[in-house]
Amino acid sequence: METMKMYKSYEDLPKIKLPHNEPIFISDSTIRDGSQMPGVVMSTRLKFKIYEYLHEIGIEKLETFVYHERDKKATKMMLDCGYEFPEVTGWARAVPADIDEVLSVGGINETGILMSVSDSHILDKMRLPGREAAEEKYLNALQYAVDHGLRTRAHIEDMTRADNYNFVFPLIKKIIEIDPDCTIRLCDTVGYGVPFAGVDEPYGIPAMVQYLKNDLNVKNIEMHTHDDFGLAVANTLAGYWHGANWSSVTFLGIGERAGNAEMEKLLLFLSQRVEGFEKYNLESIVQFSRFMEKEIGVKIPRNKAVVGKNIFAHESGIHASGVLKNPFTYEPYPPEVVGGERIFLMGDSSGIEVLRHKVQDALNDLMDINIELKKTDPRLKMIQAEIQKLYDTEKRISCISDEEIRAYVEKYFVFKPIVRQETHHGKIFRDCDEDADD
Amino acid sequence: METMKMYKSYEDLPKIKLPHNEPIFISDSTIRDGSQMPGVVMSTRLKFKIYEYLHEIGIEKLETFVYHERDKKATKMMLDCGYEFPEVTGWARAVPADIDEVLSVGGINETGILMSVSDSHILDKMRLPGREAAEEKYLNALQYAVDHGLRTRAHIEDMTRADNYNFVFPLIKKIIEIDPDCTIRLCDTVGYGVPFAGVDEPYGIPAMVQYLKNDLNVKNIEMHTHDDFGLAVANTLAGYWHGANWSSVTFLGIGERAGNAEMEKLLLFLSQRVEGFEKYNLESIVQFSRFMEKEIGVKIPRNKAVVGKNIFAHESGIHASGVLKNPFTYEPYPPEVVGGERIFLMGDSSGIEVLRHKVQDALNDLMDINIELKKTDPRLKMIQAEIQKLYDTEKRISCISDEEIRAYVEKYFVFKPIVRQETHHGKIFRDCDEDADD
Repeated sequence: METMKMYKSYEDLPKIKLPHNEPIFISDSTIRDGSQMPGVVMSTRLKFKIYEYLHEIGIEKLETFVYHERDKKATKMMLDCGYEFPEVTGWARAVPADIDEVLSVGGINETGILMSVSDSHILDKMRLPGREAAEEKYLNALQYAVDHGLRTRAHIEDMTRADNYNFVFPLIKKIIEIDPDCTIRLCDTVGYGVPFAGVDEPYGIPAMVQYLKNDLNVKNIEMHTHDDFGLAVANTLAGYWHGANWSSVTFLGIGERAGNAEMEKLLLFLSQRVEGFEKYNLESIVQFSRFMEKEIGVKIPRNKAVVGKNIFAHESGIHASGVLKNPFTYEPYPPEVVGGERIFLMGDSSGIEVLRHKVQDALNDLMDINIELKKTDPRLKMIQAEIQKLYDTEKRISCISDEEIRAYVEKYFVFKPIVRQETHHGKIFRDCDEDADD
Repeated sequence: METMKMYKSYEDLPKIKLPHNEPIFISDSTIRDGSQMPGVVMSTRLKFKIYEYLHEIGIEKLETFVYHERDKKATKMMLDCGYEFPEVTGWARAVPADIDEVLSVGGINETGILMSVSDSHILDKMRLPGREAAEEKYLNALQYAVDHGLRTRAHIEDMTRADNYNFVFPLIKKIIEIDPDCTIRLCDTVGYGVPFAGVDEPYGIPAMVQYLKNDLNVKNIEMHTHDDFGLAVANTLAGYWHGANWSSVTFLGIGERAGNAEMEKLLLFLSQRVEGFEKYNLESIVQFSRFMEKEIGVKIPRNKAVVGKNIFAHESGIHASGVLKNPFTYEPYPPEVVGGERIFLMGDSSGIEVLRHKVQDALNDLMDINIELKKTDPRLKMIQAEIQKLYDTEKRISCISDEEIRAYVEKYFVFKPIVRQETHHGKIFRDCDEDADD
């Protein structure tokens, strides 16, 4: 028989242990892959502000382009402010000229180098004669970077649609021979990765990461995943689970097409659910998201994990009622962890409990008193009837605002004599306290 | 040595086999959990329209509330139109009165019954004296439904924060004794599930599903997951991977807080990546998403997988250039699969290739000709210089519109004499054809 377990608060819940007991880090690609998002143009000022938010959170590294003067200007601003982290690193195609650009900035000690490995990328996109030509190009560029004193990352592009056993793994072996500390970035370029053990290459992230770690003795493995099938965060975590020590993610998941793994989801999972991740400070996450929404015009749906406006909003009967009794019942973590705020909404799926709460608040506020309103109060039932009628006749397709609640309070509590008898019985007053959800 | 593999088209890519060779189905919760989303109110007409879209896709089942007259009206409209699928099923709390409501509609043959299993839900939310009282309540309701001829689903709420070995698994054993065909819905109510094997209950989805299937011989297992940590889709798939035969999802992932697993992501993964899923028709997915965005006012970010406007939009140098040569390079599947459309945008991360493509289109259109414009054309370089200057001086923070491209074409190609000498050399014309990405 297992020991009885009783989870009634966040502190009661056991934390998860990652299978590999090694330090794990996060690298930002918001101002690189994020700025490539169609429709997004980032100013120098914006890039620097993002850098400051990342510093506040405690992100260890970021990558940036240095092609244009505007890129270099932003990079210098970051380097000049002297923060220990995030470390500012470069991004280059596998050509010496690009690596020279990285070197020309001064103060950048690491660069990523693009190494596309799928045949479609080698033959169709780059129009190289074949895999051998690609390998030669990549290893030459790597050697050039090493010779010029840079630490390196190999961005193994489109690895999840490549011939890993015959081309990619042997290539990585040669990379590690040139630079044993090279970070191998496993790029799931079009989101084809699958986070489950037992799935072979090119899709199975666990299988590929384990091969890199155990068969090729790669010291630094980094996940870079895209969300085309909704698995970016899971694939990033699957990497950590099986031996990766880095991930390359973007804030809000901005990036090409469906974007990248969301930094904020990863941060919440690690900080709230996994042992030993006190190092990140999440208090500015919601503020950061509002800032980005405004600056780059990206829409944040109300139901986006961590940063959506609904994350601590409760409307439906069972949920709102549960949260009013104990927020733990229907919240994944307390709002203050991310600088969020709990709100209750009165809508068509709400029950008497959320109405009671809102009417009591409005009443106490209007009359400057502090009374406890009972769920059985007949005036409350009358207000509920009025609201349900609005929805039943489909005259109303939005929530009831706080101003409207105040108007109901004025009508039934303030300007009208208190009618004690319960004149309204029956179905329409059904207690919807628990009318919903699992 | 492994056989050489060459993936250059969607047909070349191997499909994944699910470990269990059993039929798999999808159940919709858009008009139930989706309608509970704070801020969302669904009219009868909207619910019926959603039902029609689900029918077109081929979704096998849906669930609906029948508490209010408006719920019943929508339910009757669905039942009356005589479609074979989705089957319309009910939703009830574990009380006979709720099951009576389901029966009163006429024509509903299956109902879900809410069975909250975490101690916080039992003690704090429901204020029951303890687990025994909860079990009694749940089994009585189940028996009542069975006695009245209904097929059943047990919605095991908050199972990922419950004491499974000591309470939940024994409860499920008793449920299966009463109704061996009962569908056990594994509700990951606040998104605590983890999709990786080796993680024990209450978080590990594989471990829990395997226990249900192998130890308790549950025939029908259904996943119902929430996205609070960004793992809803992965947890749903983890369920299928380890023995679940149903999932309960919502279109666009609308639902409480961070919402539910997105039906559209699941559909794309199954249809495009897994063997044997020709049964779903995805052609109306994009249209369905535009309809929902308009009707319920939920924001769809440009980078939302499957339905976002960026899914087939290409702006950055390497990506756009790759897609122009072969769309397979940077698209996860062809746009027509979901009724989407490919677009190219000219922005600050674009290279000469996308500009060439857009200028050529505008030129041919303006002059009603059909010529091929060379990447080295000096007029093209002049336009690129003008655009880069806009971004370098940060006067511009958006993409260049098609109208603007036409204006450049007029300026340099139509009304101006053709200057053949390449007057603009140097850095500003750097070929950004491949300036980005992994």
